[in-house]
Amino acid sequence: MAKKLLKKLADGKRVYGTCITSTAPLWIKAVRSARLDFVFLDTEHVPLERMEVAALCQLYGAAGIAPVVRIPSPDPIRACQMLDAGAEGILAPYIENVEQVREMVGAIKYRPLKGERLKQLLNNSGSVEPELKDYLANYNRGNICMLNIESVPAFEKLDDLLDVEGVDAVFIGPHDLSLSLRIPEQYDHPKFEEVVKLIVHKCRSKNKAVGIHFSDHPGRQTKWITEGVNFIIYSSDIMLLTQKLSDDFNIIRES
Amino acid sequence: MAKKLLKKLADGKRVYGTCITSTAPLWIKAVRSARLDFVFLDTEHVPLERMEVAALCQLYGAAGIAPVVRIPSPDPIRACQMLDAGAEGILAPYIENVEQVREMVGAIKYRPLKGERLKQLLNNSGSVEPELKDYLANYNRGNICMLNIESVPAFEKLDDLLDVEGVDAVFIGPHDLSLSLRIPEQYDHPKFEEVVKLIVHKCRSKNKAVGIHFSDHPGRQTKWITEGVNFIIYSSDIMLLTQKLSDDFNIIRES
Amino acid sequence: MAKKLLKKLADGKRVYGTCITSTAPLWIKAVRSARLDFVFLDTEHVPLERMEVAALCQLYGAAGIAPVVRIPSPDPIRACQMLDAGAEGILAPYIENVEQVREMVGAIKYRPLKGERLKQLLNNSGSVEPELKDYLANYNRGNICMLNIESVPAFEKLDDLLDVEGVDAVFIGPHDLSLSLRIPEQYDHPKFEEVVKLIVHKCRSKNKAVGIHFSDHPGRQTKWITEGVNFIIYSSDIMLLTQKLSDDFNIIRES
Amino acid sequence: MAKKLLKKLADGKRVYGTCITSTAPLWIKAVRSARLDFVFLDTEHVPLERMEVAALCQLYGAAGIAPVVRIPSPDPIRACQMLDAGAEGILAPYIENVEQVREMVGAIKYRPLKGERLKQLLNNSGSVEPELKDYLANYNRGNICMLNIESVPAFEKLDDLLDVEGVDAVFIGPHDLSLSLRIPEQYDHPKFEEVVKLIVHKCRSKNKAVGIHFSDHPGRQTKWITEGVNFIIYSSDIMLLTQKLSDDFNIIRES
Amino acid sequence: MAKKLLKKLADGKRVYGTCITSTAPLWIKAVRSARLDFVFLDTEHVPLERMEVAALCQLYGAAGIAPVVRIPSPDPIRACQMLDAGAEGILAPYIENVEQVREMVGAIKYRPLKGERLKQLLNNSGSVEPELKDYLANYNRGNICMLNIESVPAFEKLDDLLDVEGVDAVFIGPHDLSLSLRIPEQYDHPKFEEVVKLIVHKCRSKNKAVGIHFSDHPGRQTKWITEGVNFIIYSSDIMLLTQKLSDDFNIIRES
Amino acid sequence: MAKKLLKKLADGKRVYGTCITSTAPLWIKAVRSARLDFVFLDTEHVPLERMEVAALCQLYGAAGIAPVVRIPSPDPIRACQMLDAGAEGILAPYIENVEQVREMVGAIKYRPLKGERLKQLLNNSGSVEPELKDYLANYNRGNICMLNIESVPAFEKLDDLLDVEGVDAVFIGPHDLSLSLRIPEQYDHPKFEEVVKLIVHKCRSKNKAVGIHFSDHPGRQTKWITEGVNFIIYSSDIMLLTQKLSDDFNIIRES
Ligand SMILES: [Mg+2]
Ligand SMILES: [Mg+2]
Ligand SMILES: [Mg+2]
Ligand SMILES: [Mg+2]
Ligand SMILES: [Mg+2]
Ligand SMILES: [Mg+2]
Repeated sequence: MAKKLLKKLADGKRVYGTCITSTAPLWIKAVRSARLDFVFLDTEHVPLERMEVAALCQLYGAAGIAPVVRIPSPDPIRACQMLDAGAEGILAPYIENVEQVREMVGAIKYRPLKGERLKQLLNNSGSVEPELKDYLANYNRGNICMLNIESVPAFEKLDDLLDVEGVDAVFIGPHDLSLSLRIPEQYDHPKFEEVVKLIVHKCRSKNKAVGIHFSDHPGRQTKWITEGVNFIIYSSDIMLLTQKLSDDFNIIRES
Repeated sequence: MAKKLLKKLADGKRVYGTCITSTAPLWIKAVRSARLDFVFLDTEHVPLERMEVAALCQLYGAAGIAPVVRIPSPDPIRACQMLDAGAEGILAPYIENVEQVREMVGAIKYRPLKGERLKQLLNNSGSVEPELKDYLANYNRGNICMLNIESVPAFEKLDDLLDVEGVDAVFIGPHDLSLSLRIPEQYDHPKFEEVVKLIVHKCRSKNKAVGIHFSDHPGRQTKWITEGVNFIIYSSDIMLLTQKLSDDFNIIRES
Repeated sequence: MAKKLLKKLADGKRVYGTCITSTAPLWIKAVRSARLDFVFLDTEHVPLERMEVAALCQLYGAAGIAPVVRIPSPDPIRACQMLDAGAEGILAPYIENVEQVREMVGAIKYRPLKGERLKQLLNNSGSVEPELKDYLANYNRGNICMLNIESVPAFEKLDDLLDVEGVDAVFIGPHDLSLSLRIPEQYDHPKFEEVVKLIVHKCRSKNKAVGIHFSDHPGRQTKWITEGVNFIIYSSDIMLLTQKLSDDFNIIRES
Repeated sequence: MAKKLLKKLADGKRVYGTCITSTAPLWIKAVRSARLDFVFLDTEHVPLERMEVAALCQLYGAAGIAPVVRIPSPDPIRACQMLDAGAEGILAPYIENVEQVREMVGAIKYRPLKGERLKQLLNNSGSVEPELKDYLANYNRGNICMLNIESVPAFEKLDDLLDVEGVDAVFIGPHDLSLSLRIPEQYDHPKFEEVVKLIVHKCRSKNKAVGIHFSDHPGRQTKWITEGVNFIIYSSDIMLLTQKLSDDFNIIRES
Repeated sequence: MAKKLLKKLADGKRVYGTCITSTAPLWIKAVRSARLDFVFLDTEHVPLERMEVAALCQLYGAAGIAPVVRIPSPDPIRACQMLDAGAEGILAPYIENVEQVREMVGAIKYRPLKGERLKQLLNNSGSVEPELKDYLANYNRGNICMLNIESVPAFEKLDDLLDVEGVDAVFIGPHDLSLSLRIPEQYDHPKFEEVVKLIVHKCRSKNKAVGIHFSDHPGRQTKWITEGVNFIIYSSDIMLLTQKLSDDFNIIRES
Repeated sequence: MAKKLLKKLADGKRVYGTCITSTAPLWIKAVRSARLDFVFLDTEHVPLERMEVAALCQLYGAAGIAPVVRIPSPDPIRACQMLDAGAEGILAPYIENVEQVREMVGAIKYRPLKGERLKQLLNNSGSVEPELKDYLANYNRGNICMLNIESVPAFEKLDDLLDVEGVDAVFIGPHDLSLSLRIPEQYDHPKFEEVVKLIVHKCRSKNKAVGIHFSDHPGRQTKWITEGVNFIIYSSDIMLLTQKLSDDFNIIRES
């Protein structure tokens, strides 16, 4: 199963996905009917462990829907486990320094290299022998390295973070970012909008894909797509259900 | 945990629920936020086995949300297993004759009586000794016996089916009923509407709760509530998600 | 793994076991420390499905602790599935007629024979060819056929039920029996004691093992062991925990 | 996901599959690398329940590998559950009479029709209205009805069994058949070979697909393919592993 | 579901719980019948992963029984995951220095703040803006931060550890403490008793709840309750079962 | 269940095992029929979490087949969890320095000691009191500490790594080693063979068991057994199945 999400982005296409938290066997029918390019599996916040993630990665992967996994922290061991399980993209949360980015690139692009040799290579990527370089490029073809940018310190170091070779995409975490900006959940605040706009523009100008996660209504997504967002992660199954249940039962109860 | 759904109906209240197909641990948050009276667990069509049903019954039961389980066929053994697992209501599908109803009442109201003695009792319920009768009434207090009426033969025998002592509610299956009427999925057809109306009115006049399952839009429910439906089973998590995903991504994709 | 429980009984030994309802991986340590001969897996009342039963049968079987499975009804298909999963004994609930016993023997002793040929054989077991007979005897060596006797009709037909060739043991269900006797849960009632005594004596005189299930206190078991009970199924993990939790917390709370 | 296995057979292609008993998430890689057309999920003998079967059906179905499920007995309820779960083919074990075949066809080709109406239709299929007929044909397109022929009585009634409209394929069970022939496991016995040959030829002459299950070595399959077998179900993951483990460790141990 | 355990302690009540290691669906009945205030889920030593912990937290939480989770090490990422899963209290094992305590408080009381901003705040909690402070207080209301004190170094630094703002309770680990005191498992040794007494008194004088875990008999708990222990975590399901099985089968075997 | 694998090695026996990735309940039959001494559970690369590992450890342990677990990284917390779950051997991957080895020995041989006291002991093991030493030796009897040597830096420091007291065995990782030698997957390269030979000889001369993992064909194992390899971990269930499926279907397809 060739990994195709990175290629779609490189070809200038927008890619669409939602966060899936349920392992119900027939769930894939709902996802397939929405013609999504990927599913987002959030192991930072959602109770899904390695067995479940592996099963979901194999299932959605078999259906041509790329699995993108957020790991709980920027831990290279965990990133490798998720790739072994079938993940196509790895999202590392709350990135704030270059060392974290290098470790993620090491895990996602130079796997299975580890230990001292990997450390040397990450400090000076020019040093790798052509045969080994080809081997690793082939071994990891299609893997996507995504950074969660969700704090003021991350925003301030954005150029350095993006300039580590191997970074493919940025995912903005609005909730955490609003807290870091001291304007909790104020997603219409001018300060919030200004920062997001700068991140989006910088990413696209550096040829990185960029996304932002909102769950309240589709309008938030369309607004930022206009600004350049091309990696669209919209809401989650549980949030969509919560809203739809509430809306429809309000109508029914009022009858 | 006292079983309270039957009491709510007896008190003249409408009760509201949806079909839950996912075992995701945090799902209950969505259900709770919609202030549902019950969840409908459909083991006829949905891949949920006894372990999952038991876990869901205990979970929703602990939260005061009554679990109602549809069994795959009117099998008294399976009905008893679901009650042992914590079900509050049992829905038996495709009921078409009085013998089936008697067996369901036997399982739901006279459990754990079985075998020859139960057969005698079901043929002549007056014969049971007061001490045993009290014991069984107490043992099964709050259990709800629901019949799925979803074919022309069932409709034609409705009086007999409803008159078996112990029946609490009827649940109309529109898909199967439309097939049996040879008007597949034509839920606005006058013949369909006429039959449903007659069932609803007959049930309420005999003091039985009645429901009908629709998943396309809440308007279908409100219409039948006006006619007397008081046991409202609306849609399912997977159908609501399918619709909402599709609606919202249509908006997003058009941007 | 040779099946050894039947041999122990044949050698005149009492065998000891409890009902296990939990699949917790370390549970076997508790069971092993009590030096039990078997575990009783009750799929009639306890939410355990085939995957769980198979895993438990393999686990306890590997530890030399025989798995005995109660199936939900005297269904030969289900009996065969449990043997395939690793069960050593099959307990069929609420037996009340000879036809049920024959079907159980067919499943437990003549597996994998099925269909018309098996029916013929069960009606006249003398007709089977020696080569096939040996094959089946070897195929099913060590399998135990147990009947749940738990109603007045069963008691009245006990001789016929026990005389079907292939029956190994009887298990008395006191709860159901007390209901059938119209003295619900009165386990000290003279009528109850008389019936149990007759069943125990008859079983032992016909060289069948016999057990009875009590969960209130060990005294009930010791009393009936004196009368001849030799297949001791005492209580269950959940009942033992309930009692011990309650007893110990009463002491702690009073401090 | 269009169901394609029946089409392949209709196009005169042989189809290849193996029995899968493991739910390990990465297992599909092994299956995919062998370029199989289908997987055989045997819920008659293997501990796999509805949740596992549904997950496996969705997984292999998503990868374009058709899931074929053997149900534990010719039970139409269970057949429908497996189709709901995503099965493409249903294999009913130990078929010995026309009534069983009719019930299987009813479940697999006329689902969701049930009850009295279905009984009428199965007795006189000409009576169904064109609109309903089209609806059902569309609803069940691609579903495969397979009969397990594994006894002398079945062999003797083969013409009648195959002539029920809606039967697509036959699967010969050699173990059971050898027992029914009183030559247990003698798969090279002339009597065995003669009966199998007759079944294979009859099936192909009536334009039904036919398969036979062997696990000892591939030579048995190739031999029967020459005779006309075109639905090749070869061995199982656990049997292949057992043989390979044994063979390779014998080499290693001898070193 | 409001979190109420901390309030009970603040109101001067003792709270009672046991360690639950089994996920059996009906287990909650045993726990409920003992009227426990909380369950202790020990992911340090017991094989329970995130999916199981989440399911148990939602189940017991729905029943008003607070879930308290011991994490495998003082890892703030893991603490946050358990709170996301529904834990009400987090117990961090083998605490020996102030830095560990700060990280635990950060995760349990200032979640979802992370990274550099959280580090600043933990070093000088006065610096947080009132709006953000309120937001975080509300977000984490009812969360309980518990420290495992189970070594001599921890005992020696107890004042510093307890004085980190946000610590709610201490849980003494007698096994580890006895090893650290070089008197393995000697829980009646004067040195052991002296140290425990000092810890208990210091905690209560600083208005922190305090507990100690014993599994041998309830007398150990009552003794330390007299000294001031008010957070009573008594034994575990598996230990209680082991003891009760052994005691009762001893009686039965002697008959 | 006494842990016996270390004793077998000490007695000069070779021990044989394979990597098991499937949790299918009947799998143990295949393993048992190959008379393996141990199973290798690789949680570094295979999606198996703590619940599954615990169940597999208890199952294989009960059958007298020692469970050896590779942890994802040399993390002492994880090592202790696997021992709690029933592992007999712990394999730590990609060991490259003495500090890592000390932490592994601390977890595997001095559990449950932790924190500052353990650090002191690991720096000067002579300092431990005899009573505590005996206690820990008894507590951890039979536990096996295995190091994965799979890089040039590890090879260069091999003497130091092996000389940490408590190391029992070395496991060579050929894939990683070939990459570290810049000759990816060239297992017949003279440089590769030279390094492996030196590791094997050094281990045996220092009285450590040694193994190497190959999956392509048994010949690779026999070759290295001749050189001294005595801890034989051959292939995995999924690799063996992949090869056998492919080989046998090639024969079948060509017919
Ligand atoms: Mg975040
Ligand atoms: Mg229906
Ligand atoms: Mg009973
Ligand atoms: Mg068969
Ligand atoms: Mg501890
Ligand atoms: Mg490696």
